Parts: sequence; structure tokens; C-alpha cells
Amino acid sequence: MKLYSMPSSGNSYKVRLLLALLGRQVEMADVEYQSAALDEAKVSGALPFGKAPVLQLDDGRLLPESNAILCYLGEGTGFVPADPFARAQMLSWMFWEQNQHEGTVAVRAALLCYPHRKAQATPERLADLLAAGHANLAVMEQRLATQDWLAGDAPTLADICLYGYTHTAGSRGGFEMERFPGINRWIARIAALPGHVGLHD
Amino acid sequence: MKLYSMPSSGNSYKVRLLLALLGRQVEMADVEYQSAALDEAKVSGALPFGKAPVLQLDDGRLLPESNAILCYLGEGTGFVPADPFARAQMLSWMFWEQNQHEGTVAVRAALLCYPHRKAQATPERLADLLAAGHANLAVMEQRLATQDWLAGDAPTLADICLYGYTHTAGSRGGFEMERFPGINRWIARIAALPGHVGLHD
Repeated sequence: MKLYSMPSSGNSYKVRLLLALLGRQVEMADVEYQSAALDEAKVSGALPFGKAPVLQLDDGRLLPESNAILCYLGEGTGFVPADPFARAQMLSWMFWEQNQHEGTVAVRAALLCYPHRKAQATPERLADLLAAGHANLAVMEQRLATQDWLAGDAPTLADICLYGYTHTAGSRGGFEMERFPGINRWIARIAALPGHVGLHD
Repeated sequence: MKLYSMPSSGNSYKVRLLLALLGRQVEMADVEYQSAALDEAKVSGALPFGKAPVLQLDDGRLLPESNAILCYLGEGTGFVPADPFARAQMLSWMFWEQNQHEGTVAVRAALLCYPHRKAQATPERLADLLAAGHANLAVMEQRLATQDWLAGDAPTLADICLYGYTHTAGSRGGFEMERFPGINRWIARIAALPGHVGLHD
């Protein structure tokens, strides 16, 4: 298998983290923003929705969307609960991540960190994203203040998914992470999982 | 089971449509925008992420996120493919729907249709959402120009999910649906499924 992966992106990192936690290796095709490799991957049809990551199976079939790739690779492993309700809860967090969390926490970091996004980083937009991102982090904190993991009582794909952009929300996105002690304990818990790799490892 | 459902919302409608296609009935708790019932549901803790729909199990456990509810109710039915890759493809479309499609196609319709959103409906924002929504509809068209269904060769949760906001993209969102003949055929195909109900049925 081959992973079209954007080195700086939390969405691509999620998949690399799951692979590392599972002790699996796949071929990596790096497609960073504004690189010739990204343009080539788009032109070649390797990115069905126009974005990375994409998992290419050995027979050439293509699977886009980071969280769908997590589900495909995670099926049958300990990161997907056997209990139907816990599995559905895991998916709730993952859909919420794409609908609410990524559009605030990840987007604010992108506006601050990527030179080609600077023009969109108006003070008003950054302020709106800060408030909306803090509200979303508070949703996670409500769970993690009293529970170790987002769904059920063991780490699942939901934790790997939300760790992607949350663990750099302070350093890259400027969010006030000292407000969220439960999230900080959870970040440390994930960083201590056997096989964990960092965003830039 | 009880469904906290917003009558005017495509996200809630997806779940009502799946229930109808499965011939299942659950108790409905309507929580329309700006209603006392919505305020009460929020205050009571029935909406863990602050939004409808939410499925409440008979033992009181709460499951938010429309697409996670579809997965929970659809498990073991013909709307979830047995093949692991087709199942992952189904999830790709569903994550994409929450990340790309809903934020453009559904948001433009909301700005145009809900009086309390009118202040945000600036000409510039409506124009941006029109262009981005058309680009997302073109992604669906690319698949549906040559295939009957979004994932695999039978209707899945991905079709029910994306039908939610796509079937009213012209009438409520002002999108130029005549550009997308494959989508229009697919809409007719879903409307003809046994048990189909409309948004306001």
C-alpha cells in the first residue's frame, strides 16, 4: 500500500500515527502544499477529492479522507471497539472532528502557519476562529475531565483522530491550552502509547 | 429509542429517511431552530455536542452526529456493504460530506432560508459558497455520471447521507442543478426507493 501524505498536515499525520501504533509500514508519497509532487498527484488522479491523505491499495484502488482511512486500517484492531454503541460513539467524535473541530482548530493553525494562507488571516477571522475553537475544545474537555478516552474505556480511532490537530492547537493555533487540563492529560496519555510518533518524526 | 430531530434540517432528515427505508419507527422529539423545545433539550443535556439530531437509546445513552447515527442504525442492514473497501468508500463520502459538502451546500441554503441567519448572508459570502458548493457538487457528478451509487453498486448510507442536503440544493440553496445530470438521475433513483419519505413528510 502507498499513502499520499502531506508532511505538515494533521489529517495525514493521523494516518501515520495509527500505522506506527499498529507497527505497520507502507510506502510514503509526500505531497506537501505548493510542491510539484502535490500538483502531479492531483493531475494523475491520485487524489479523488483533491486533498491528501489518500491510501492507495496494492491493486491501485484509492481511498480518500483521513478518517475513512483510519477506519479501513483500524478494522479488526484494538482501536475499534467491539461494542456497537462504543463504536458509534467513536464515529460521533470523528464526524464532529471533520465538521466542527477541524474547521476551527486546524484552520486557525493553517492561517497562522502557512504563508500562502496569510492573506485570509484577518484579525476578525482569527478572533472568530479562536472563540469557536475554544468552544470546541471545551466539548472535548467536558468528556476528558472525567474520562481517559473519548469513546469507551480504551484508546480508539477517535483519540488518534482528534489528537492530530489538538496536540498542536497551542503551538500552531494559538489556543489557550492551559484552560483544558483534561485535554492536556489526554495528550500526554496518547504520547505515551507504545509506538507513538510525532508530527515530524 | 427516541430521535431528537430538527424538522427543517437535512442532517436530521437523513436519519428519518434511513428509518423509513428500514421500516423502523422511533419516538420523535422535534427541536426546531429557535423553539423552546430546542432550548429545553440543550439545557437538559440531551444534545452532547449542542446540535440535533441525537439518538437516545432506551437506556438513556445519547448518540450525537447524524452520520454516526446512520452507521449505528444501518449496521447489519443492506445499506452497509459487507466488502471492507466498499464500506470504507462509503465512509469517505460521509466524512467528506461533513467536511466539505455540508459547509458549502447546506450552509448556503441555511443563510438563504433561516431568518436568524440573514445577517450573515452577505453577497460576498453567498458568492463564495456558490462557487465552493458547485465545486463540491462536481465531485459527486464525476462519480454519478457513470455510476448509480456513490460507493459500490448498491445504495448505501453514503447515498442517504448526501441526499439529505443535495436534493434541496437547487430549491433552497440556489445551486444550478441543471449542470449535474448524473446527480439529478441519482436523486430520482433515491426518491424511488421503497419506503422513501420527503423532508417534510
